[in-house]
Amino acid sequence: MDTTTVPEILSRTRKLIEPGLHRAVDSLSMELRPLASYHLGWIDENGQEIGGDQGKGIRPALAILSAEAVGRPAETGIAGAIAIELVHDFSLIHDDVIDNDTKRRHRSTVWALFGIGQAIILGDSLNSLAQRIILDPKLIGIRTFKEEDTPKLLAAAKCLADATSAMISGQALDMAFERISDINAASCLAMEAGKTGALLGCAASIGAILAGGNEAQITALERYGVELGMAFQAIDDILGIWGDPAATGKQTFSDLRQHKKTLPIAIALASQNKHVNELAKLLIAEEINEFDIERAAALIEECGGKTMAQAEAKKRFETSLGVLEKVGFEPKAKDELVDLAHFVIDRKF
Amino acid sequence: MDTTTVPEILSRTRKLIEPGLHRAVDSLSMELRPLASYHLGWIDENGQEIGGDQGKGIRPALAILSAEAVGRPAETGIAGAIAIELVHDFSLIHDDVIDNDTKRRHRSTVWALFGIGQAIILGDSLNSLAQRIILDPKLIGIRTFKEEDTPKLLAAAKCLADATSAMISGQALDMAFERISDINAASCLAMEAGKTGALLGCAASIGAILAGGNEAQITALERYGVELGMAFQAIDDILGIWGDPAATGKQTFSDLRQHKKTLPIAIALASQNKHVNELAKLLIAEEINEFDIERAAALIEECGGKTMAQAEAKKRFETSLGVLEKVGFEPKAKDELVDLAHFVIDRKF
Repeated sequence: MDTTTVPEILSRTRKLIEPGLHRAVDSLSMELRPLASYHLGWIDENGQEIGGDQGKGIRPALAILSAEAVGRPAETGIAGAIAIELVHDFSLIHDDVIDNDTKRRHRSTVWALFGIGQAIILGDSLNSLAQRIILDPKLIGIRTFKEEDTPKLLAAAKCLADATSAMISGQALDMAFERISDINAASCLAMEAGKTGALLGCAASIGAILAGGNEAQITALERYGVELGMAFQAIDDILGIWGDPAATGKQTFSDLRQHKKTLPIAIALASQNKHVNELAKLLIAEEINEFDIERAAALIEECGGKTMAQAEAKKRFETSLGVLEKVGFEPKAKDELVDLAHFVIDRKF
Repeated sequence: MDTTTVPEILSRTRKLIEPGLHRAVDSLSMELRPLASYHLGWIDENGQEIGGDQGKGIRPALAILSAEAVGRPAETGIAGAIAIELVHDFSLIHDDVIDNDTKRRHRSTVWALFGIGQAIILGDSLNSLAQRIILDPKLIGIRTFKEEDTPKLLAAAKCLADATSAMISGQALDMAFERISDINAASCLAMEAGKTGALLGCAASIGAILAGGNEAQITALERYGVELGMAFQAIDDILGIWGDPAATGKQTFSDLRQHKKTLPIAIALASQNKHVNELAKLLIAEEINEFDIERAAALIEECGGKTMAQAEAKKRFETSLGVLEKVGFEPKAKDELVDLAHFVIDRKF
């Protein structure tokens, strides 16, 4: 592994998608353009240009590397990279409304600043724009796809729509989990496969689909993305309870305060440990005080929630790298996919 | 014209889409299925099956007739009809949140009953499902499309995504209108072309696209739908101010109370009438009393808002029927499209 090259990979792929992403936002109507530009960190709430934090750009990087991995130029993956980025943004904007989150990356969320109606309509417009771009890349100035590429575009659009749909179902299940306590590791993993895995799986294969990679390559890349997403999510779940607030930017025991039912909790609740009933009672309580929160976190650990979630993350991560070895890929792009996977995981531990 | 046959047309097309629509809803996750069934009027808020009012089904009927109009069986249009219906439902569910509407067809709206988060996620899921169905009709058991039909599916998916995008932009513009008074007939018509025209244009042509109709046929059908939608909307705008509450189910002067800027208002505000300033002041007022509302309605009429909106509706309606005469269509389906157009308009005058 060589994660020192990852900033270079991300910088290169970001530069590749920037012109098209700007053209995509420019294609929005006058009312929606400033909202999108704000969400993307291009302007502040007064419309002034800022060179802000725009996210790591992992998903578009995966899309571009997946085109290169099947031996085609990076440019082949750009339409997929931009579409994935827009779907990701759509989901963040709507999720912030649903989860009542007022801050994202230290900035006010779209709904907190402009209202719920504007956030709904902006999310809807980005989702729709993503579909349009993948169905007709000319929309953002990409003219390399010819008539004979129609099946590739259709397959890419299906990949995107299926992943979007799975992501939405995962979010719906996550919302349902907040109201119930009868969950186990399997149902939680199914939720996370939808909420996090599906779009990463699509990101890691859509470039290869557009590039005309073979079925074994596409399947392996998708699996790599799904498993990487699941590993990432398991670690995120651990940090959501035991993460250092200085590193995560969240409160201590953040997920417990928000009544989220994440993987460590699901594992603990389904364990045979004698403390399970006590834990369930603490988690069901409408109001939970500091003492109870600390006690709940300790019980989750006692019931194996932390170590088993760590084991799950490790297993998923190894699977994600393993699938890349079983199929032929262009070596440099494959190495970069491996580097990127380490980067995604390492920064979270 | 023979609008007596319209209930038969609508009943026939509803029966055609019903199995697929049920399969579509069945494909949703367990959390989303009851919400969708509630919105569609299949179950009540307690989950009990009801044979409620499910809407007229104009859009799916247009989609199916458009396949028949180019000489293919009704079945060819079913995937398009269902996708259009789902996009329409998605837009209603999100618009109800945005417009803060608690009732639709005398039932509580989804957000009013289940919360804003659930309404957002349900709308998102139906939008995504619509795209998936048109990209892969097998999803709802339609197996008539073969590999050589890929370009038709791609074109239909583009039609749907473009119309969805235009509809969302129209809604964004409509929201912006509530905050500004500097609008004229042209900007209002542009908004309504997006908000209402685009999806009707897609509905009226997507079946023909799936059926492999020629370009002249597809263009004419789309124009027929757009113009019919604009005619419908102009009449809806007139009824939104001067409609009889007993017939519309809304309050008197409903749109004025909601600060909506519809076509009659846009026309009146852009007129040279000496009362324009008085009207503008009344419309800007945060609080508007009964006396002022009546005065505003009278001034809009005085400024030509009502007669010119009526003229616009008439012109659009005639254009919509006119375009059908310039291209060759299967006569029975064309006659039914004409009947349907009369029905859409007649019930609103």
